[in-house]
Amino acid sequence: MVKKRKEKSIEELVQGVLNGDRVTLAQAITLVESNSIRHFERAQQLIEAVLPHQKQSIRIGITGVPGAGKSTFIDTFGSFLTGLGLKVAVLAVDPSSNVSKGSILGDKTRMERLSRDVHAFIRPSPSGGTLGGVSRKTRETILLCEAAGYDVILVETVGVGQSEYVVRSMVDFFLLILLTGAGDELQAMKKGIMELPDLVVIHKADGDNVEKAEKVKEEMNMMLHVLRSYTEGWETKAVTASSIKETGIDSIWNVIQTFIQTTNNNGVFQKRRKTQQLEWLHAMIKEHIERHFYNDPEVKELVPKLETEIIEGKRAVSSSALQLVGLYYEKLKR
Amino acid sequence: MVKKRKEKSIEELVQGVLNGDRVTLAQAITLVESNSIRHFERAQQLIEAVLPHQKQSIRIGITGVPGAGKSTFIDTFGSFLTGLGLKVAVLAVDPSSNVSKGSILGDKTRMERLSRDVHAFIRPSPSGGTLGGVSRKTRETILLCEAAGYDVILVETVGVGQSEYVVRSMVDFFLLILLTGAGDELQAMKKGIMELPDLVVIHKADGDNVEKAEKVKEEMNMMLHVLRSYTEGWETKAVTASSIKETGIDSIWNVIQTFIQTTNNNGVFQKRRKTQQLEWLHAMIKEHIERHFYNDPEVKELVPKLETEIIEGKRAVSSSALQLVGLYYEKLKR
Repeated sequence: MVKKRKEKSIEELVQGVLNGDRVTLAQAITLVESNSIRHFERAQQLIEAVLPHQKQSIRIGITGVPGAGKSTFIDTFGSFLTGLGLKVAVLAVDPSSNVSKGSILGDKTRMERLSRDVHAFIRPSPSGGTLGGVSRKTRETILLCEAAGYDVILVETVGVGQSEYVVRSMVDFFLLILLTGAGDELQAMKKGIMELPDLVVIHKADGDNVEKAEKVKEEMNMMLHVLRSYTEGWETKAVTASSIKETGIDSIWNVIQTFIQTTNNNGVFQKRRKTQQLEWLHAMIKEHIERHFYNDPEVKELVPKLETEIIEGKRAVSSSALQLVGLYYEKLKR
Repeated sequence: MVKKRKEKSIEELVQGVLNGDRVTLAQAITLVESNSIRHFERAQQLIEAVLPHQKQSIRIGITGVPGAGKSTFIDTFGSFLTGLGLKVAVLAVDPSSNVSKGSILGDKTRMERLSRDVHAFIRPSPSGGTLGGVSRKTRETILLCEAAGYDVILVETVGVGQSEYVVRSMVDFFLLILLTGAGDELQAMKKGIMELPDLVVIHKADGDNVEKAEKVKEEMNMMLHVLRSYTEGWETKAVTASSIKETGIDSIWNVIQTFIQTTNNNGVFQKRRKTQQLEWLHAMIKEHIERHFYNDPEVKELVPKLETEIIEGKRAVSSSALQLVGLYYEKLKR
C-alpha cells in the first residue's frame, strides 16, 4: 500500500531549503509552480521566509539559435563551475513547454554530466501558462535556489516569442550562443536579440570549424564594436568555444567574473537588480488586473460581440473599449 | 474685438470631414487629440458617425535612422503621389514630442513642396502623453483622414522607443529608409527593426553615392533573402532612391501597388486590418484598466512604500503585488 506523503509545513520547507536539501528544494519549487490558490499563498509565505537568507549569486541567462548547442554548452560550462567548487542551478524559461515527467528526463539526458553532479541542480521550465506565469515561477525558483546556497544560476531560454527579453530582465549577465553557419547572426540580429548579450559565444569551434569560427568571431567583434552595449560601461565581445573539446570555457568564466567586478564597482550590478525587482512588481500587477478583467463573466460575454461589430465596421474601437471598461467598473461596485 | 468662435456641432464636423473640408478636418483632429473627457466623448461620437464613410486607403508606415532623410523622402514621395491625382495625408507618431505651434511650422518647413500642395494634408504628432495615448490619437486621425477622402496615409515614426512597432501595427505597408553609411544597417538590425519592413529604401543614391548605394542594396538583398519576411507571402527587398534627383520614387510606388494587389488576393491585407483593430481594442482596454489602478489614491500611496521594502529585501514581489491588487478590489466594492 502506498502511504500518502504528509505535506511539509512551511517551517519544514524553509529549513530544508536553507539546509540545501535537494529533495525539499524540489518540493518547494513544485509549490511555487502550482496553480492552486492555496499553494500560491503557501508559496508566498515560503518565499518571504527565505528572502533574508538569499546567497549573493550570479544569475546568467543563456540563449541561442536552435541547434547552437545550448544544452551541451550548459553541460560543459556547468561542470566546469562545479569543478571550481561552485554550486550550480540550471533553470529554463519555455512558455511553450508542456513539461511532463518525460521531458524532465529529457532535460537530464540533454545534460548528461551535470545531471549526475551532486553540486548541480537541474529544473526544467515550469509547464504551461502564459509567459508572465512562467516568468514569475522562474524568478521565485531563482530565489529558492539562492536560499539553498547555489552560487551560479543558469537560466536557459528556448527563444520562443519574447522569452529572451523576459530572461534578460531576470539575470545579471546574458550570453548569446551562435554557430559559425551563415545566416545565424542575421537571424539573431533580425529578432533584435543582438542588443541583449553581454557576451557572444561562437560555439562548436572545433575540428574543421576552428578557422571558420575565428573568422566569424572577428566579424562579430567588428560589428559589436559599432553597436551600443546593453550594459552601461561594458563592451560586449565575441569569443570562440568548444564544449566537446572544452576549449574557451575558462575564458568565458573569466569574462563573467570581470563583468561582475566591473558592474559591482560602477554600481550597475546593484542598480540593475533593483530595477528588475520593480519591473517584476509592475508586470505582476498588470497580469493580475488584466486577468481579473478578462475573467469577468459579463466582459467575457461582451468581448466577442464587440469584436465582431468592430470587424464589420459598425463600432469604433475606442467606444467599444470604453463600454467594456465602464461595464466592468459598474459591476465591481455592485 | 475678437469674437469667440462658436463650437461646431458633431453634425457640422461630420459633414465638413465627409466633404473633405481641410479646416473642419483639422478641427476634428484637434477634438480627437484633446485630453478633456467631454472632448473625448464628442470625439467618439464623431468617429462612429464617420466610420461607415471611410475611403479604402493605403496606409504606409515610414521609419529610418536619424539623418536618413525621412522628411525629404516624404516630401518627394508625397508630391509624386499627388501628381498622380491622389490625396495624401502625412501623420507622425512621436511620443517624445511636445508639439507647439512652432513645431507644426517646423513640420511644414521640413516638407516644403507638400505643405503647399492642396491635395496633401500634413499633421504633426499629437503632443505629449504615453505611446498608447499618441497611438490612439493617430489611429483615430487615420480614420478621419480616410473619411475626408484621403487615398494614401503616410505615418512617419521618429524611431523613439517602441514607436516602430506601434506604427507597424497601424499600417498596411512598412518602409524602412537607410543610408549608405556603414553601421546604419547594423543599428537598424540591432534594434530589431529589420524584421518589420516590406521594403527597404537605400536613400540619397545620388552623385558620388550612386555606386555605394547600389552595393549596399545588393548586400541588403542578400541579407533580406535569408531573413523571413514580416508579411506572409511577400519577399521584402531593397531598392535605391534619391529624393533630390527624384529617382527610384516611381519604382517604390510600383512595389507598393504590387504589394497591395498581392495581399488583397491572398487575403493577408484584410486579415491584417482586422487583426490590427482587435489588437488596438485590447491595447486600449489594458491602458484604461492600468490607468484606473495606478490613479487610485490608496494605490498611489502604497506603491512607493512597497517598492522601498522590496528593494531593501524585506518584502517579496509576489505578495506585494497581491496586497496592492487586493486593496484595490476591496476599495472598488465599497
